[in-house]
Amino acid sequence: MAFTPATTEQRFVLDHVVRIGELAATDRFAAASDDVVDAVLEGVGQFAAGEWAPLNRAGDTVGAKWTPDGVVMPDGFAQAYKDYVEGGWGTIGVEEEWGGQGLPFAIQTAVLDTLGSANMGFALCPTLTVGAIEALAHHGSPEQQALYLPHLATGEWTGTMNLTEPQAGSDVGALRATATPLGDGKWSIKGTKIYISFGDHDMAPNIVHLVLARTPGAPAGTKGISLFLVPKYRLNDDGTPGDFNDVRVVSIEHKMGLHASPTCVLSFGDNDDCVGELIGAELGGIRAMFTMMNNARLNVGLQGVQVAEGATQGAAAYALDRVQSARAGSPNKESVKIVEHPDVRRMLLRMKAQTQAARALVYYAAGQVDRANMGDAAARNRLELVTPLAKAHGTDIGNEVASLGIQVHGGMGYVEETGAAQYFRDARITPIYEGTNGIQAADLVGRKLALDNGGAFATLIADIRAESKDERLLALVDACDAIGRRLATADADDKLAASYPFLTMLSVATCGWLMERQGALAGTDDFGRMKAASVRFYLEQIVPEAMGLVAAASASAAVLYAIEPALFAA
Amino acid sequence: MAFTPATTEQRFVLDHVVRIGELAATDRFAAASDDVVDAVLEGVGQFAAGEWAPLNRAGDTVGAKWTPDGVVMPDGFAQAYKDYVEGGWGTIGVEEEWGGQGLPFAIQTAVLDTLGSANMGFALCPTLTVGAIEALAHHGSPEQQALYLPHLATGEWTGTMNLTEPQAGSDVGALRATATPLGDGKWSIKGTKIYISFGDHDMAPNIVHLVLARTPGAPAGTKGISLFLVPKYRLNDDGTPGDFNDVRVVSIEHKMGLHASPTCVLSFGDNDDCVGELIGAELGGIRAMFTMMNNARLNVGLQGVQVAEGATQGAAAYALDRVQSARAGSPNKESVKIVEHPDVRRMLLRMKAQTQAARALVYYAAGQVDRANMGDAAARNRLELVTPLAKAHGTDIGNEVASLGIQVHGGMGYVEETGAAQYFRDARITPIYEGTNGIQAADLVGRKLALDNGGAFATLIADIRAESKDERLLALVDACDAIGRRLATADADDKLAASYPFLTMLSVATCGWLMERQGALAGTDDFGRMKAASVRFYLEQIVPEAMGLVAAASASAAVLYAIEPALFAA
Repeated sequence: MAFTPATTEQRFVLDHVVRIGELAATDRFAAASDDVVDAVLEGVGQFAAGEWAPLNRAGDTVGAKWTPDGVVMPDGFAQAYKDYVEGGWGTIGVEEEWGGQGLPFAIQTAVLDTLGSANMGFALCPTLTVGAIEALAHHGSPEQQALYLPHLATGEWTGTMNLTEPQAGSDVGALRATATPLGDGKWSIKGTKIYISFGDHDMAPNIVHLVLARTPGAPAGTKGISLFLVPKYRLNDDGTPGDFNDVRVVSIEHKMGLHASPTCVLSFGDNDDCVGELIGAELGGIRAMFTMMNNARLNVGLQGVQVAEGATQGAAAYALDRVQSARAGSPNKESVKIVEHPDVRRMLLRMKAQTQAARALVYYAAGQVDRANMGDAAARNRLELVTPLAKAHGTDIGNEVASLGIQVHGGMGYVEETGAAQYFRDARITPIYEGTNGIQAADLVGRKLALDNGGAFATLIADIRAESKDERLLALVDACDAIGRRLATADADDKLAASYPFLTMLSVATCGWLMERQGALAGTDDFGRMKAASVRFYLEQIVPEAMGLVAAASASAAVLYAIEPALFAA
Repeated sequence: MAFTPATTEQRFVLDHVVRIGELAATDRFAAASDDVVDAVLEGVGQFAAGEWAPLNRAGDTVGAKWTPDGVVMPDGFAQAYKDYVEGGWGTIGVEEEWGGQGLPFAIQTAVLDTLGSANMGFALCPTLTVGAIEALAHHGSPEQQALYLPHLATGEWTGTMNLTEPQAGSDVGALRATATPLGDGKWSIKGTKIYISFGDHDMAPNIVHLVLARTPGAPAGTKGISLFLVPKYRLNDDGTPGDFNDVRVVSIEHKMGLHASPTCVLSFGDNDDCVGELIGAELGGIRAMFTMMNNARLNVGLQGVQVAEGATQGAAAYALDRVQSARAGSPNKESVKIVEHPDVRRMLLRMKAQTQAARALVYYAAGQVDRANMGDAAARNRLELVTPLAKAHGTDIGNEVASLGIQVHGGMGYVEETGAAQYFRDARITPIYEGTNGIQAADLVGRKLALDNGGAFATLIADIRAESKDERLLALVDACDAIGRRLATADADDKLAASYPFLTMLSVATCGWLMERQGALAGTDDFGRMKAASVRFYLEQIVPEAMGLVAAASASAAVLYAIEPALFAA
């Protein structure tokens, strides 16, 4: 199935959801002119369709392979990655002082959207590099920045995040990897990390691992964690990769999907010869990690958009081709393309509407990143508030749309050759990594509702109320407002018990707001009419559906604790 | 992970949802005494846990394999199947005149529930045999019945259903396989069938294919279809399998899951030497097919229960073992088992409640099969009405619960070794085969709402109203009633556009009714308290959620047809 970049949609969302014009009017982002934005969207679309999309199947069927000498990517990936680097696609959002193009994060988001819609597993590699860049740009020393950032900015070297250990998953504070001072300002790193995406591969001459570890005497829990820069190959004096740094890939996971992305078990310092440098202050690891992870959370939300886009294109193409049964109630007894059947259309329109909603939400959040980076405190709060929504709801949508994509294909969807199943399998990790969606919901009702004394939440509610004219959406906003204010002061258990349904409600309200705005601006050309139909479906059907969650979002934790845990296994 | 048969739950549902006592009080089912029911549930539980559950992983990882000599099952399957036959587990629901035990279909359902919870892919084999038995018992000649039914009843021979062809999926009437009279009352069969589950394997000395084909001069569409009995090996005069009947397995599908079940492409009559017998009247194939498929639809709904049961057991075991993070809001900062965290409990309780709801719905329908088989016309109508609910909603639940099962496992859920991913992959076919869930929804709003001039629907609504005391459920029933009556006379497009959300609403209302009844009868022992919590969660959270579908179930098709089909791919 040919991949078609969603260029028109992306441009529309950048214009009216991100309001890219406001960004381009600033000194910081003056480069983001209309022409440049168009050129970037078109260019990456051609590149992704031409070079990355054709590798999507091999990424799944061949997959990344572990060998004693490291991870080997399927044929074609190394060249396609090289072309990505040479095309400058990695540098879009990186600041100019590090060799980047200094364009808004929102534009970089659109670029990653296209790359990942073409090949989600592949695009995870640059996604992780972006996290490493953020951490170094915010917390690295000038020397670290000078040595590493230019190579990361282009994507010539790739980055990883090393948080998880077998006993330390969602509970990062339980990690045990150690860093011992070597006396020269450097540290000896030792420990095993799991679930390290692109922890090894053969597409770049160096890999920059960002590793959380404990320094001697560090307190227990998250307060005792520091962040280290640990390259796969130490740098020579001229900054080129030199000696192997005792970082070994022990194995890669046998996963349900996302086979193009090697999920590595990395062993640091087996021979006591793994050298790292502190990034930022000792014991400041958690703060640096959040810098790295916050945008990573948006980028995972974006993976929901990517998989939804790919799945929708695949299902639409199939439904426009497959002929089966006459239209019910029609005098014409000829078999028709299945897109003509109402329930198939319902599925397709839902896929379209949900994909657009997720894209609007994630791009909107990306636009707040750019404003926050220019010192806009309100945008910073808005970003903090919508980040868990973008991550959790974006990925929930990705999974729902991928499942609908299989259903539209019928039996063919269950057979691997159509590719519908790959989207479904690839998507299923996204509600888990970078903080499970349950963790996102906990973050929402815990830290984010309390932000600015509830002001961050109140202004989002007010903004939607001020702009929306849709009664159904306003009803949902009222419900979110009441529940959110109650949850802000609720007991911890009650808060968490209601957190996930509340997150979904608030996400749908936010998406509904951004969809309604787009509907009001849609023209009468093909794109505009498709947009109008998606928006209408979203407001008429998906928004009311979220009202069904009021009971769950209003429930206490009592029912959950009415029974002792062992009864769940009885 | 050890599989524990849900014996107590099954017995409770048989008693209070199926009301097995009413059946045992009839002459027909006098054998279904309390002792016998207990012995069957216990016995199959031990058998399934001991012999079938241990093969579940190999069924997935090794899978059925195609060879030029036919399909080879993974090691252990042939012996475990032999033990199933010798244990008499195939004969439970078959009438005594064919060598069966003549127990209610509801008991057979419980047996298949346990077998499939242990190993869903494996249990599909006997599930298909049941369909073949039904078709022969209702439409076969006395000679066919005498020759075939005793061997099918024990499971010594297995059965298949051959409907689908590449151009004829949901549209069965488009099939092209042919049957040409040979002059001796037999027919020469020719054609290719796809998606034939257990179309070939090495566990039985014969396989009885039931094949839909066209006879010479037959009219187009479903009216021109006849059903044929086509054994893999023709029978000798003494009834034993003899010459090969020119039925070849050309390939098996490369599916996302259910790898233990070989999904075959079967070629009939490549050498013009495939002989079949007509089952029932010529051109009576569609009617015979529905006999075969109706119970098959319940059995696929039951697969939703099976996968939900397995996934829930796996997730509960993991959550009771995995330690991660302190309880939020607790003064105790020790890490706890993740079952203690509210959102994990919410997921587990939802899994429990949904699994129980699906089981109640499918068993309830099975109880109506038994009553209908004794000539109860009201039960026949009820069965017809709830069959699409049991199939579609049962499988939707299976998929939802399997997905939650992955989420509870976190990153481990995405790694194949835990088995959580297998449930998720296995489940995904169930909303597709035996009539996609969209077809079920079309059946509900098309044929079933009209049944008995709307009487079938009206009496279900009345029965729920008469028994329920729950305001939330009664509100949902009111909504279903109003929408159902409106849909009964709506235009075909509007009917179909609303069909799926309406099916979900009516399914939840029916499940809520059966759950509420169970809650009222639950005792205060461990089982009773778990049941009470599940029922409470179902009524407090899942029933109100279904009210969120009122808008979609009330919408017209207008939004779906506001745009031309090509725009879905734009």
